[in-house]
Amino acid sequence: MVDIATRVYNHKWKIDPIVRSLIDTDFYKLLMCQSVFRNKPDTHVSFSIINRSTDIRLADLIDEGELREQLDHIRSLSLARGESTWLRGNTFYGKRQMFRPDFMEWFENLRLPPYYLEQRDGQYELTFEGRWPEVMLWEIPALAVMMELRSRAVLERLGKFELQVLYARAMTKLWEKVERLKPLDQLKVADFGTRRRHSFLWQDWCVQAMMEGLGNKFIGTSNCLIAMRHDIEAIGTNAHELPMVYAALAETDDDLRQAPYKVLADWHEEHSGNLRIILPDTYGTEGFLRNAPDWLAGWTGIRIDSGDPAEGAETAIRWWQERGEDPRQKLIIFSDGLDVDLIHDLYDRFQGRAKISFGWGTLLTNDFRGLVPDDGLAPFSLVCKAVSANGRPTVKLSDNPMKAMGPEDEIARYKRVFGVGEQVAREVVV
Amino acid sequence: MVDIATRVYNHKWKIDPIVRSLIDTDFYKLLMCQSVFRNKPDTHVSFSIINRSTDIRLADLIDEGELREQLDHIRSLSLARGESTWLRGNTFYGKRQMFRPDFMEWFENLRLPPYYLEQRDGQYELTFEGRWPEVMLWEIPALAVMMELRSRAVLERLGKFELQVLYARAMTKLWEKVERLKPLDQLKVADFGTRRRHSFLWQDWCVQAMMEGLGNKFIGTSNCLIAMRHDIEAIGTNAHELPMVYAALAETDDDLRQAPYKVLADWHEEHSGNLRIILPDTYGTEGFLRNAPDWLAGWTGIRIDSGDPAEGAETAIRWWQERGEDPRQKLIIFSDGLDVDLIHDLYDRFQGRAKISFGWGTLLTNDFRGLVPDDGLAPFSLVCKAVSANGRPTVKLSDNPMKAMGPEDEIARYKRVFGVGEQVAREVVV
Repeated sequence: MVDIATRVYNHKWKIDPIVRSLIDTDFYKLLMCQSVFRNKPDTHVSFSIINRSTDIRLADLIDEGELREQLDHIRSLSLARGESTWLRGNTFYGKRQMFRPDFMEWFENLRLPPYYLEQRDGQYELTFEGRWPEVMLWEIPALAVMMELRSRAVLERLGKFELQVLYARAMTKLWEKVERLKPLDQLKVADFGTRRRHSFLWQDWCVQAMMEGLGNKFIGTSNCLIAMRHDIEAIGTNAHELPMVYAALAETDDDLRQAPYKVLADWHEEHSGNLRIILPDTYGTEGFLRNAPDWLAGWTGIRIDSGDPAEGAETAIRWWQERGEDPRQKLIIFSDGLDVDLIHDLYDRFQGRAKISFGWGTLLTNDFRGLVPDDGLAPFSLVCKAVSANGRPTVKLSDNPMKAMGPEDEIARYKRVFGVGEQVAREVVV
Repeated sequence: MVDIATRVYNHKWKIDPIVRSLIDTDFYKLLMCQSVFRNKPDTHVSFSIINRSTDIRLADLIDEGELREQLDHIRSLSLARGESTWLRGNTFYGKRQMFRPDFMEWFENLRLPPYYLEQRDGQYELTFEGRWPEVMLWEIPALAVMMELRSRAVLERLGKFELQVLYARAMTKLWEKVERLKPLDQLKVADFGTRRRHSFLWQDWCVQAMMEGLGNKFIGTSNCLIAMRHDIEAIGTNAHELPMVYAALAETDDDLRQAPYKVLADWHEEHSGNLRIILPDTYGTEGFLRNAPDWLAGWTGIRIDSGDPAEGAETAIRWWQERGEDPRQKLIIFSDGLDVDLIHDLYDRFQGRAKISFGWGTLLTNDFRGLVPDDGLAPFSLVCKAVSANGRPTVKLSDNPMKAMGPEDEIARYKRVFGVGEQVAREVVV
């Protein structure tokens, strides 16, 4: 039987919205948002979409009108009652009432602020400006919209069975990955793929496939909406935007040097246990750890998000040992450029030497490489970053110079202040 | 929205019927049935299911109660009004009213006769007895039921995503075949896969994928129900059961020797053009062609269904040349054990030397090889054959001794009568 009502209802949509909920975003965004809401609510920031894969001319692929419709739709969203209930009532990282009542009240009344969109050289310049807690929530939906509109533009040309076979191939590919991960007895892997996903429905499928295929080796997803729907853990802690904005706000070089630690001091006050995860690479991991206050060594773990991940993990282990900590009690989260081979390698090398887990992103939720002609669905490197705070440019160095961001003179200044020397460039695939 | 009514309705089915229509059968069965209905209506025949793949213990896999339910369901079917309209009104092979009114009236009132089911040595002995025009219609649905119940028994153990990935893999596999066939410019290929299909829905998917992927290189399906639903050509002419039963009815060796030609003489009266296709291998192709009357060389084509197909085609081409016919005006239909490699080889060798087409069966609609552990879904060689006519055993020799059937002494007699010498054995995969 055709469900006539459903069919008619579906035809009433003016668009097929990509982001349909304010919690279709990464969990750490909400954690950070609450922190910012408390500590830096009036900071004025700009976020910009940056396409590192300049050969992919998004403005040629994606219709500007469709992009505006999707972004306008996101601006029409507000927190649904059930979503609010879930955020208020759920246990996150073993803690009840993770989100404070004042934050929830603010969030319930939030609409995302305006966006600014222009085309230049075949790319979209998409910028968000305003109060930090509001603007920062644009990052994930903006990326998801750009990624999925690009997918749709490519899929547009395919026939019905070509489409079905395309997804059949993608499913097969993912399942083969799941099967290769099964033998890793102590594996803990989470979905970190919201921002670069092929599409919402595809991410949702990937999560469900991991649930069935990996059982309790799959520990959750960074995506709040998907976590809520499937009653699984929402995963995530904090990201580069905190040290980047704190650093931009620093008045002196000395303040700048302390900014990354100030971020974690604020975090330390708010969170405990598995939420105390160091993200050390914003201005170079080596220097960050060398100069870190002792209390940081007491934190639960570290997230390795750039540079050679094995080297990063060895550095962390050495650092804990130097500070008299037992690395086997520490958690190392790998979250950069993961795919099955790399997960296997890192697992083999570090399992037993530390607790380890994997935040698997782009190549979980967007591995359509090789599936259409000219590789038109291959994932690409799109980011949405804080580019200024209170009128000052932000800077990111990371452990990979290919991922560095900011004006050249500021990059030089940051390198000097943080004592960053030569860095090894690694190709940024995704 | 969940369509509540559909869901409730689905739960009302006592079983999930595999065969839901009397025209979910091969087109040639109906053509032959009409011929038998006219020429031999009162012949009493037995048909039996024979599992040539004895290592697959069907009685261990398939529950007898479920098998009986499926067979009982088939006995409850009668020709639907729309099906009758289609058979009466459609053009088959360019001809209107292919099915005569007296036959249609009989068919509209038909219910399939009883079946006899026993278990022996891990296999089912499934037999049908009665008037030939009725009993013969059991062949295809009985095979389809056995095949699909076996699939279901294996699929029973899989999880939801394992199932989805299984079909994703099967779709990918088929589509890769379609893509490999696309470059063959003059290709003509039909679906002959009803009897050995993985399931009805899967055959239906395969046909639709071929329609989209191959366009007019896909010339139709042997399955009447699927042809009707998708408004494509129903394909097929005649099969071994005609010469086998005619031969069994022969009173003398001389009658026996003539029986295969008598079949085609009857066919000649009824059909013209592309329906005049010789099936020469029932008692050995060489002898059949050598002794054939001249009028047979005037027929449109030949179907190669056993033995080395290239050799069979060369034999046919030589024979036409000897009889003063131009092979380039003749049609060679390959229908035995085809898959993409073999189709490519035969196409390369014979395209241009004759008109050629392919009736692609088991490895189109049931190539699940390698997709589950222990290869539990690999196709196997199940047939349903006329085993006796008016109390006398039938015999088939074919061009492959592995496909020979019948009592040993009768096989010896047939070999003598038809002058069949040494034959090369070829493994029967499917």
